Amino acid sequence: MAPHILESYRPLFNPSSIAVVGATDNAFKLGFHSLAAVTSAGFAGEVYPVNPKAGESIQGLRAYRSISELPRGVDLFVYAIPERQVIPSVREAVEMGGRAGVIFAGGFRETGREGRRLQEELIAIADAGGMKLIGPNCIGIVNKQAGVNATFASPLAWFPEGNVSVVSQSGGMGNSILNEIMDEQVGISKFVSIGNRANVEFADMVEYLSADPDTGVICLFIEGLDDGAAFLEKARRASRRKPILVYTRGYTESSSRTALSHTGSAASSEAVYHGAFRQAGLLQVHSSSELAAAAKAVSMGARLEGDGVFVSTHSAGPVVAICDICERGGLRFPPLRADTAGAIAEFIPEHAVAANPLDMFAFAWTDTSLYLRATDLALAQDDVHCAIAVFVTGGGAGPMFPSRDYAEIGRKHGKPVFICLITPCALVQDIADAQKEGAVAWSSPEKTGKALVDLYRLSRLEDNGNAGGDVSG
Amino acid sequence: MAPHILESYRPLFNPSSIAVVGATDNAFKLGFHSLAAVTSAGFAGEVYPVNPKAGESIQGLRAYRSISELPRGVDLFVYAIPERQVIPSVREAVEMGGRAGVIFAGGFRETGREGRRLQEELIAIADAGGMKLIGPNCIGIVNKQAGVNATFASPLAWFPEGNVSVVSQSGGMGNSILNEIMDEQVGISKFVSIGNRANVEFADMVEYLSADPDTGVICLFIEGLDDGAAFLEKARRASRRKPILVYTRGYTESSSRTALSHTGSAASSEAVYHGAFRQAGLLQVHSSSELAAAAKAVSMGARLEGDGVFVSTHSAGPVVAICDICERGGLRFPPLRADTAGAIAEFIPEHAVAANPLDMFAFAWTDTSLYLRATDLALAQDDVHCAIAVFVTGGGAGPMFPSRDYAEIGRKHGKPVFICLITPCALVQDIADAQKEGAVAWSSPEKTGKALVDLYRLSRLEDNGNAGGDVSG
Repeated sequence: MAPHILESYRPLFNPSSIAVVGATDNAFKLGFHSLAAVTSAGFAGEVYPVNPKAGESIQGLRAYRSISELPRGVDLFVYAIPERQVIPSVREAVEMGGRAGVIFAGGFRETGREGRRLQEELIAIADAGGMKLIGPNCIGIVNKQAGVNATFASPLAWFPEGNVSVVSQSGGMGNSILNEIMDEQVGISKFVSIGNRANVEFADMVEYLSADPDTGVICLFIEGLDDGAAFLEKARRASRRKPILVYTRGYTESSSRTALSHTGSAASSEAVYHGAFRQAGLLQVHSSSELAAAAKAVSMGARLEGDGVFVSTHSAGPVVAICDICERGGLRFPPLRADTAGAIAEFIPEHAVAANPLDMFAFAWTDTSLYLRATDLALAQDDVHCAIAVFVTGGGAGPMFPSRDYAEIGRKHGKPVFICLITPCALVQDIADAQKEGAVAWSSPEKTGKALVDLYRLSRLEDNGNAGGDVSG
Repeated sequence: MAPHILESYRPLFNPSSIAVVGATDNAFKLGFHSLAAVTSAGFAGEVYPVNPKAGESIQGLRAYRSISELPRGVDLFVYAIPERQVIPSVREAVEMGGRAGVIFAGGFRETGREGRRLQEELIAIADAGGMKLIGPNCIGIVNKQAGVNATFASPLAWFPEGNVSVVSQSGGMGNSILNEIMDEQVGISKFVSIGNRANVEFADMVEYLSADPDTGVICLFIEGLDDGAAFLEKARRASRRKPILVYTRGYTESSSRTALSHTGSAASSEAVYHGAFRQAGLLQVHSSSELAAAAKAVSMGARLEGDGVFVSTHSAGPVVAICDICERGGLRFPPLRADTAGAIAEFIPEHAVAANPLDMFAFAWTDTSLYLRATDLALAQDDVHCAIAVFVTGGGAGPMFPSRDYAEIGRKHGKPVFICLITPCALVQDIADAQKEGAVAWSSPEKTGKALVDLYRLSRLEDNGNAGGDVSG
């Protein structure tokens, strides 16, 4: 299966050449932003601007007046043109050997009967020519590993490269999720806004990404599914290979009305989704921020083998919040064994109690070695499956947390360690630095707690036969 | 009342001089970080480092060997010393005319019977001398307007100045909340980590801040209350003058155990808090991120006069999320009247439906004037009480949202307008720019939705007799 599906989508995600139909020098048109996006991402292949009204060049590239003027076999056609030009233009591209297309324009199935008929016509042309179509009514795709930004948003090329892939009906929501992932200081692999889903569905993307060697974790934003059973079947198979996180919306009257007029999908009820996703081994989350925080941990390889958490801190308040969230999510804070507690009691400050959670007051803020010694002892307990350190950081104007040594202790015990590194996003470099050392770090207690609960829920899904194992793809 | 309580806390929040007892040049001691914090915040008064082992100077300032060497009448004493030295040192300060103290050390009531006895002794000395004590077991206070950073964390001086004040038992959680507020691009006035609450309680701070002319909104993080009735009585009065937002934690077994050993407070049940806070006119929130997002809107003066929301967008996905959150929070998206819809239909793109929510596709992204025209028309409806614009921004690499003109339309109609300006925190300057124009902006749909629901809940509290009105204080 894998080689075949990778080859089917090669012209889309790894094109040798890209044509931008509707490219222009007029910054009030999508075709301007689209050509700028395609050329801003480090794409090494040929880029062909196409516009019947063009002069010699567009944005400094040689311009083509029509698709028929192009060399044969351009892989990917990006359509930044009004919807009534789409069908003839896709037909031309298929005739010229095009294998993939991205269509921004709306005006198809989301608009009613005539739109649905047009979309069917479009699908028939594409299918006959073996062309994969993303959209209509989308913002396109990104493949960081190939320098492909087939959207109309240049900033999508700025996201750092990594192994998190995102599929969203909505381009805007997909962008919001990418922003949260960037803020979490992890990188992306593929981004796909599938819009109206002409002949590429969630099911296809889940199958493709589960085979894609650059994808370690798959994130989905779903407003509505047409063929839920087909999706769940492919998702079930894919979730055995890689973790899949899913965020759905569209449960209320106003939101499902919006979703329907958006990409033509009727929303399902929250309860139906919940049960079906669980059965298919998908981890359901409830906000883009939760999605990004959990995806980060998964993408960095963190897995929980059980429910026992050890927490050490110099400040108890954030731990109160983390405990609330974790305990309600099914995690536990096992008591320290007598020998562990005795050993920890040797070096913690006066009045500190050798317990779990372990509060070492501001002493541990100035002498951070206390975290390392306590965590090393606690992780030796069989019923402790991971550790969290809570630390308030000030971007170098106070003590720094010893992330490298802390991560090393986790590796020594073969258990994941996490840092709740309380910092404003203005100082997010602290998070990046900690993660470079191999410790997953979040900037707030709630994120920390929720992401841990998600990892735990993921581990329970895996116990039921789903994997999430191999993040290197 | 107001003048008296302002005068009582003047030596704490607006001291003429500050002594740092335990100041040192040794960076492994709190006394090092504390003196650095006090001198890093632009404080214009005298600063006196005190340490019996000092040479001529500490961190470049003339050093004093004892409190008795100081000039009489130093206002504020910051104690960065071990707990067994605290009581004699506070007694000396009271004798020298000190009126306020901040005590970092733990080892008092949170440690059991002997600690409780010591804390009682401390309170008796302070009360007899009219000295207000913050702590023990805290990280101190900040007053941006006076350049006071009486903590051991220099970065607390970097937060921008504004009208949001924060009171937290926990210094770490307080810091986390301040970070979120900074990330929201609004400024703070006072920060108080009250720790063990020797003779300054939540009730006192709520009373003080409600009288403080620089405070526009009061944010509380509570792990447990000793005298709930007294607090609720003062909070009820204060909430008639200014909005109060409260975030509580400590509901589970592990978290309440942590809270108890933290500041000696037993946690209450969530249900008890919920009802009591509502009766007292306090707005309860459920995370520091929600707290900061809502506090921002309140601090910028946004108030909802009803439940009707108009939404315009170039991307429907984020609106689906916003609708879910808002509708579940009691807000509505009123249908457009025939005349409004007719006028909007004149200029929106083909296939766009003149409805609420209003999706104008990518056309509105390149021609942002569509937002302005549509919002101007919709806000004229009596049943529309506010507007949201959803816009994906790329920090200048694509179209910019016309925040100034949008805010102006809100002012024209006397109704608040909000922007869900989807941006990574790396580009948070976009948020700052939008807010400079007077439009509240959040970076994600969930934040937008939740903050709006909170504003609405606040408006309901106000309908029940509470105010939240005068944010200028």
